Amino acid sequence: MTPFAAPVRDARFVLEELLEHDSLSLPGFEETTPELVEAVLEEAARLAGEVWAPLNASGDSQGCRRREDGGVGVPDGFAEAYRAYAEGGWNGIGVAEALGGQGLPEVVASAVQEMLHGANMALGLCPMLTAGAIEALAHHGSAAQRARYLAPLVEGRWTGTMNLTEPQAGSDLSRVRTRAVPCPEEEGDHYRLTGQKIYITWGEHDCAENILHLVLARTPDAPEGNRGLSLFLVPKFLVNDDGSLGERNDVTCTSLEHKLGIHGSPTCTLSFGEQGGAIGYLIGEPGRGLNHMFTMMNEARHKVGLQGIGVAERACQQALAHALERTQGRRPPARGGRECIIAEHLDVKRMLLSMRARTDALRALALTCAARMDVARHAEDAEARQAAQARVDVLIPVVKAFSTDQAVDIASLGLQVHGGMGYVEETGAAQLLRDARIAPIYEGTNGIQALDLAGRKLTRDGGAALDGLIDEVEATARALSISEDLHYLGESLAAGAADLRLAASLVLEQSHDPELGPDAVQAHATPLLTLTGHVLCAWQMGRAALKAEAALADGSADPFYRAKLASADFALRHWLPVGRAQLAGIEAGMTRLADLDPASL
Amino acid sequence: MTPFAAPVRDARFVLEELLEHDSLSLPGFEETTPELVEAVLEEAARLAGEVWAPLNASGDSQGCRRREDGGVGVPDGFAEAYRAYAEGGWNGIGVAEALGGQGLPEVVASAVQEMLHGANMALGLCPMLTAGAIEALAHHGSAAQRARYLAPLVEGRWTGTMNLTEPQAGSDLSRVRTRAVPCPEEEGDHYRLTGQKIYITWGEHDCAENILHLVLARTPDAPEGNRGLSLFLVPKFLVNDDGSLGERNDVTCTSLEHKLGIHGSPTCTLSFGEQGGAIGYLIGEPGRGLNHMFTMMNEARHKVGLQGIGVAERACQQALAHALERTQGRRPPARGGRECIIAEHLDVKRMLLSMRARTDALRALALTCAARMDVARHAEDAEARQAAQARVDVLIPVVKAFSTDQAVDIASLGLQVHGGMGYVEETGAAQLLRDARIAPIYEGTNGIQALDLAGRKLTRDGGAALDGLIDEVEATARALSISEDLHYLGESLAAGAADLRLAASLVLEQSHDPELGPDAVQAHATPLLTLTGHVLCAWQMGRAALKAEAALADGSADPFYRAKLASADFALRHWLPVGRAQLAGIEAGMTRLADLDPASL
Repeated sequence: MTPFAAPVRDARFVLEELLEHDSLSLPGFEETTPELVEAVLEEAARLAGEVWAPLNASGDSQGCRRREDGGVGVPDGFAEAYRAYAEGGWNGIGVAEALGGQGLPEVVASAVQEMLHGANMALGLCPMLTAGAIEALAHHGSAAQRARYLAPLVEGRWTGTMNLTEPQAGSDLSRVRTRAVPCPEEEGDHYRLTGQKIYITWGEHDCAENILHLVLARTPDAPEGNRGLSLFLVPKFLVNDDGSLGERNDVTCTSLEHKLGIHGSPTCTLSFGEQGGAIGYLIGEPGRGLNHMFTMMNEARHKVGLQGIGVAERACQQALAHALERTQGRRPPARGGRECIIAEHLDVKRMLLSMRARTDALRALALTCAARMDVARHAEDAEARQAAQARVDVLIPVVKAFSTDQAVDIASLGLQVHGGMGYVEETGAAQLLRDARIAPIYEGTNGIQALDLAGRKLTRDGGAALDGLIDEVEATARALSISEDLHYLGESLAAGAADLRLAASLVLEQSHDPELGPDAVQAHATPLLTLTGHVLCAWQMGRAALKAEAALADGSADPFYRAKLASADFALRHWLPVGRAQLAGIEAGMTRLADLDPASL
Repeated sequence: MTPFAAPVRDARFVLEELLEHDSLSLPGFEETTPELVEAVLEEAARLAGEVWAPLNASGDSQGCRRREDGGVGVPDGFAEAYRAYAEGGWNGIGVAEALGGQGLPEVVASAVQEMLHGANMALGLCPMLTAGAIEALAHHGSAAQRARYLAPLVEGRWTGTMNLTEPQAGSDLSRVRTRAVPCPEEEGDHYRLTGQKIYITWGEHDCAENILHLVLARTPDAPEGNRGLSLFLVPKFLVNDDGSLGERNDVTCTSLEHKLGIHGSPTCTLSFGEQGGAIGYLIGEPGRGLNHMFTMMNEARHKVGLQGIGVAERACQQALAHALERTQGRRPPARGGRECIIAEHLDVKRMLLSMRARTDALRALALTCAARMDVARHAEDAEARQAAQARVDVLIPVVKAFSTDQAVDIASLGLQVHGGMGYVEETGAAQLLRDARIAPIYEGTNGIQALDLAGRKLTRDGGAALDGLIDEVEATARALSISEDLHYLGESLAAGAADLRLAASLVLEQSHDPELGPDAVQAHATPLLTLTGHVLCAWQMGRAALKAEAALADGSADPFYRAKLASADFALRHWLPVGRAQLAGIEAGMTRLADLDPASL
């Protein structure tokens, strides 16, 4: 198994050179120096590489098991690795200091999260869900709730879960049936929950002292549909006034899923109220549960994108290590006739370059999105905050869906580089594909992301935020066009930007058609998201090429910059055209699709 | 688990309408009537759907196990299902009557094989390997060898294996080290083999009375490299002069691989000569082993393409069944507000259409290739045979690589249609992805296929055979262009054909450059193969659209034809552009790639 070296060099390139540490100039980050960021990345890389990564394969083969007593055992070493993470203070790095965190910029926290997911995605899911619970409580919890529950979550002593899905309610949460009944007044202000939730990530385990379940449920008087849903906090162990743990609550893990991948992450069916009703506390306003959940989910979607990138990075490293070691074939006699490592075969080198170029592009885009989150939260100027948030809103479904679709493909290509050895589980390449495959599904399927982009995000502002992003892409294209060596890249990028602008305007136009409207958006949503992902990734690689060219012109001999130029060339001239092809489909329209009886397929 | 219904309707469409049963007019097929073919397809569908398909999931979860005595147990029911196949005479349907088979056209045998692979790919591998052994013996075996070994193979009483790979010799077979030493003359004309072979599919099992291993090995006086390799027949049980089974030979299964998929197919490490030397018989000429193997491999590559198509078909059926049953969301109130099945959501319907369109296109292409094989073997006119063979030679790497790459993607999309349920193993969608993932690797990785196309097949005739295929594509484009309803498809297809012609000429041109030659071919091989696959698949769907339009114009109300038109529209106007984007990369060239130090990636 190839060891994992977290991508500190490339993360630093993005943070320092592409983003020029913009986040650090925002109010609240006065004490966050570039040196501190560097130290954080180096330390995170150590935790990822030395503590988390070595458990990735064993965690996969061992998996989780449900014990007789309803408890869940996670793979050997996971509890210790999680504690090393929590005790190292990693759980709070991105959490505001006011909430007990270290208040580092989101862009730094994101770089760290990617490293940890690359090291061990199954384990990384545990704190990822906790982060969602922290968000929900911080934004929607009462002062008393925040006082009681936040600190142990931020410290990582307790973990959190998100309980949305039920067997009949997946993408459509209006079907949620779990019920929450208020207790008689004399008993307190809590509710009693009964129902069943499925696919609850890290829903039960012994790695932490307590688990706080955030549960979407329906109150007795609530209307049908989305507006009837409220959000509840259901602790595994009830919490006494002094913060100590009290009784075990009425929530039990009734089974674990047998999944394709992320075997080290227990995916639980949770039953609430088998003994009469699980005690739950209303979070935020009644009937606003779905909105409150979406606060968490938007963040979580960005983090799922980071998962994809982490796994893609690991796939790159593992495929490269194999290709640098495995010898097959010889050079032609005219070229010395010596044995070749397979990385020298251009078809294989092309696969490696394709993996690397795409992974770097996705990382740059996801971190650019995170840097905008920092602006949206911390900029002094309200207009700047709003403008940044509008860009973030457009970027998040793209980061989630495009990164994870690509991650599956990158992991699959990594397996291919291994040849027959890739198909044998011991090599570890197959695990990366199996693990990556969940990411396009959870936190809203990639189809839902596409509808979010093409429906909500695009139509609500008439495409203004996306247009603003395309303006930035075009500015990069112009900068490339005046470079002697990179003008080809500029032409490519400009063409991509023009395609995206046209595609978005076509979808918008059709969305206003009273007859076609929702159908047009649905039919074109995924092609539009794919095209957007390609153009924005190409944009990032265009920016990277400019920086690399400047560094080389300044006399740098770092092979990193040469590789970056090769990656940029691949991304803009070989990969971007594939994305641009989505425009043809949008232009062709979808008459046949709307009229088609699916049963005839 | 969704039951599997073998695609009789579409196979008949391809055979009867697209190929107009051309094969049946060839010499030797006088007694093969369309009615017979129809009956064969119906019977095969029954075997596939009722006997093989129900064992697919249980075979996956149970897997194979190596017993203490070195034997290998395959999943419950596999032996019986294999016997049902053999006793039904299915093993010999495509084998010449002179060899004891039924001598049906390859195009019919191929349609049947696809059905069986769709039903149970792991089990389908067993006869697939036997077919290779039959080929090798029929072409290269002596009269005595054919007399002794062929009949039980054709009847399916014995099975065959191909032993090529060794730990150090995967894609590069010149590294094979297994040794074959001739016995002292007084002992006989056999050899003693010692060495180890890995990844031997169905290398050991109890489903048949005997196993014939075809083994690539090196004789003592042989030169290094490919020319030193000879082909040997090593029976598991030696065969007496009367055909009865004799002693157990010195070949043992020392381990089974733990693979990502095809768990029901035992992948063995075979050790030859642990007791002093396995008895083997030279097949064909000494030093020509690799050539003899390639006879088998070319055929086998076509069959691997069929595996991909079979699994893709099953993925289509399973995703559709789920999407027709699963309800999520509602129609907008203005449209009745009723509950929706997810197949009605256009984004999901688009996924289903994409899967169906690609699967149908791949099937049509693979069967078109098989029909050309029939001409290449049976046409009276030698020139016609040669011309057909030249087309077959170009088509085979495309059918193998493009079908299997697409199959992985189609299976992955099928999983996506299932949402969270797709990631849970019980649903069966994940198995299809795991099973499909081997097909781009074995029988020559898809990179090797691309090199075969762009290097050998394209350069050896200056692109003449590919040009001939493109002429046919253009003829279809012209036919579409004069149709009022389909002229858009004609424009698309013509553009694709032009792109492919340009791409092929660019690669050819660069291949003649003494400096760039091999590098250019290597760097552009995969993009060229991908583009070829797209254009040829679009061609098939263009032909299908013409037939469907004619049928509808004749008053047919069969929804099959409406679906075919929708698939063709998708294939030519949404999918083909993605393939055409490969030209941009070929035009951009690969300077950065050749100069790049892979270690810097």
